[in-house]
Amino acid sequence: MEFNEGLFAKHITPINGSVIRDIFKLLGKPGMISFAGGNPSNAALEPEVIGPIAQEVITDIGAPILQYGASEGFPPLRGSIQSYLNNCGVICDESEILPTEGSTQGMDLLLKVLIDPGDVVLVEDPTFLGALQAMRTYHAKIVGVASDENGILPDALEDAIKTHKPKLVYVIPTFQNPTGVTLCTERRRRIAELAEKYGVIVAEDDPYHDLRYDGESLPTIKSFDKSGWVVYLASFSKIISPGMRVGAMVVSIPQLMRKCVIGKQSSDLHCPLMTQAIVDAYLRKGLLPEHLKRILAGYKAQRDAMLEGFSAFPEGTKLYKPDGGLFIWAALPENMNATALLTKAVDSGVAYVPGTHFYPEGGHNNTLRLNFSNSTVEKICEGMEKLAKAFKN
Amino acid sequence: MEFNEGLFAKHITPINGSVIRDIFKLLGKPGMISFAGGNPSNAALEPEVIGPIAQEVITDIGAPILQYGASEGFPPLRGSIQSYLNNCGVICDESEILPTEGSTQGMDLLLKVLIDPGDVVLVEDPTFLGALQAMRTYHAKIVGVASDENGILPDALEDAIKTHKPKLVYVIPTFQNPTGVTLCTERRRRIAELAEKYGVIVAEDDPYHDLRYDGESLPTIKSFDKSGWVVYLASFSKIISPGMRVGAMVVSIPQLMRKCVIGKQSSDLHCPLMTQAIVDAYLRKGLLPEHLKRILAGYKAQRDAMLEGFSAFPEGTKLYKPDGGLFIWAALPENMNATALLTKAVDSGVAYVPGTHFYPEGGHNNTLRLNFSNSTVEKICEGMEKLAKAFKN
Repeated sequence: MEFNEGLFAKHITPINGSVIRDIFKLLGKPGMISFAGGNPSNAALEPEVIGPIAQEVITDIGAPILQYGASEGFPPLRGSIQSYLNNCGVICDESEILPTEGSTQGMDLLLKVLIDPGDVVLVEDPTFLGALQAMRTYHAKIVGVASDENGILPDALEDAIKTHKPKLVYVIPTFQNPTGVTLCTERRRRIAELAEKYGVIVAEDDPYHDLRYDGESLPTIKSFDKSGWVVYLASFSKIISPGMRVGAMVVSIPQLMRKCVIGKQSSDLHCPLMTQAIVDAYLRKGLLPEHLKRILAGYKAQRDAMLEGFSAFPEGTKLYKPDGGLFIWAALPENMNATALLTKAVDSGVAYVPGTHFYPEGGHNNTLRLNFSNSTVEKICEGMEKLAKAFKN
Repeated sequence: MEFNEGLFAKHITPINGSVIRDIFKLLGKPGMISFAGGNPSNAALEPEVIGPIAQEVITDIGAPILQYGASEGFPPLRGSIQSYLNNCGVICDESEILPTEGSTQGMDLLLKVLIDPGDVVLVEDPTFLGALQAMRTYHAKIVGVASDENGILPDALEDAIKTHKPKLVYVIPTFQNPTGVTLCTERRRRIAELAEKYGVIVAEDDPYHDLRYDGESLPTIKSFDKSGWVVYLASFSKIISPGMRVGAMVVSIPQLMRKCVIGKQSSDLHCPLMTQAIVDAYLRKGLLPEHLKRILAGYKAQRDAMLEGFSAFPEGTKLYKPDGGLFIWAALPENMNATALLTKAVDSGVAYVPGTHFYPEGGHNNTLRLNFSNSTVEKICEGMEKLAKAFKN
């Protein structure tokens, strides 16, 4: 018998994979400037620091670092993540921390334990396309909620909660992906209140928290959470290394934590001990603050160079200036189509992600997301010039 | 509002976690001899070899080892796994290999892309309880198929395929977990034929393949697979390190591979590059054959010591002598209950896993699984004496 698509699970059949991951594959072309993806700069990665730490933790821990570990995570890492999160305003006990393979896995586990096919997840409109794909994998019904330049609108969110009775609300409060918008403090408080009032889990995905170039850090939604309805997703991908795949979820409701651990047992048993031990040692040695200082200076200059580059873009282009993060979000004049223009852009040596993929319902064809962290200032200037030309032709 | 269990996804609500993982937690008691779990011996782990390799790959690869990688896996590792599998009789192209977090994740991905709630999975009865839990997580209907001392019965399997129209057949052909039984060559061929005849995916989970102490290696089911219906799950957990979480799935049907990659994008994006690069370097340096020779000698002695220890067990105890792997499976006299006896055993300082947990339908309360790889010969003798006493009282 020949294999046929009818054998796939119903929910997975229509899913064809992340556009970004597929754009990645086209980037092998020599000289290509990529504003697609969300990679940190190679200059922000420290193999010369991580190498000796790897050797050190393996020597210090010995055989147990190569042995099976607990699904709940490497105990010292839970402790060092607790201290790290305390500094971010997330006060929690070690037992509330579950190390995950980036925040990607935290989201996957939440979906695994909460979502039956057809259950509703509310999201910012637009939102991170990787999260949208994960939700589709679990056959969730995704409903977008309106946002403005201060983030998701609490009244619209409350209306949507009443109408759709969601299991989960997914929010990226700080330097949102893709828009770069930061949710204001008052709305953060409101969201925590709505979560408790209506009994809905809020996933606060906060991987860009430390990447602030202007202004003051805001309290997390989790810091307003009195009864555990907010699950905080942390990631070290953007500040230490994405390739090590270390993040954590903070789950304050013990029954929910238990189910997430059970989900993790079946997903991958546990995160590799070596990568957990390396991030633990990195945090304990106090290396993060100095490292952040260094990379923030670089990223700020890259952001500013990219913002300047928009001056040559077609008249009527609108853009949002983010206070941090990795992305600039722009809307070309309404009659332009960023998907159609991508081919021209790639031909001229520059890639980006069309904005339509970040909208649960598609559309918004004039929008696009540009990443500035993974290109030097020089390449950003060159790439923005090329893009401006491609768009004007 | 207070959190309540009604918020969980229906399939996850009744799942309370792996018994083995929970038994692990009780093993902290000083002096406890554990025949539970499936850990390799600490003496079979090589931090003194892996440490310098870690340092080496980080130095050689530099920043990209800390950067995002492809969901499809670290390309050199796909090549070295291909060579390794060729030697095991699994002839495949690099493009058919997907590195995973142990074979655990390979199974999770197969379930994710194939199983709608209620779809049937056929398994050996008994089978690995971790796989059973993963199947339950996806709300699969699990149906056991009778086996004897040469493995699963092909005629019973064919009948079950006709009756239940399964999406997936899960088989551990070599030194099966928990029974230690090895599927004979003729049945391996038949299973590959049945897979093609009826259009059902066979997951061949083969983590113990290299741990043979007696007799000759048999061809894999995959080696008889002409049209891609057999998915081979390989793992380096038992032969290099479980804590690094490196395994691989071999998927020969391109559409199926594509969906597994999509599943992986949402699960964890990709395996950590560092652990992939370390296993790659380990394989390329040709360290595995010598290492295997050393650990096999130790494990064989441990198995033999455990087999001897059964002589003091209650009369009427039946046991299976495995040619390899990590476990010995035994049935106490019918009137004895291995679950009830576990408390007595743990009180006297020895742990094991009651066999009932390996049966999809439970029952078989007189059976138990003993692991010999994670205790020295001395501890095995001591533990078996204590067990014999506890069982005889």
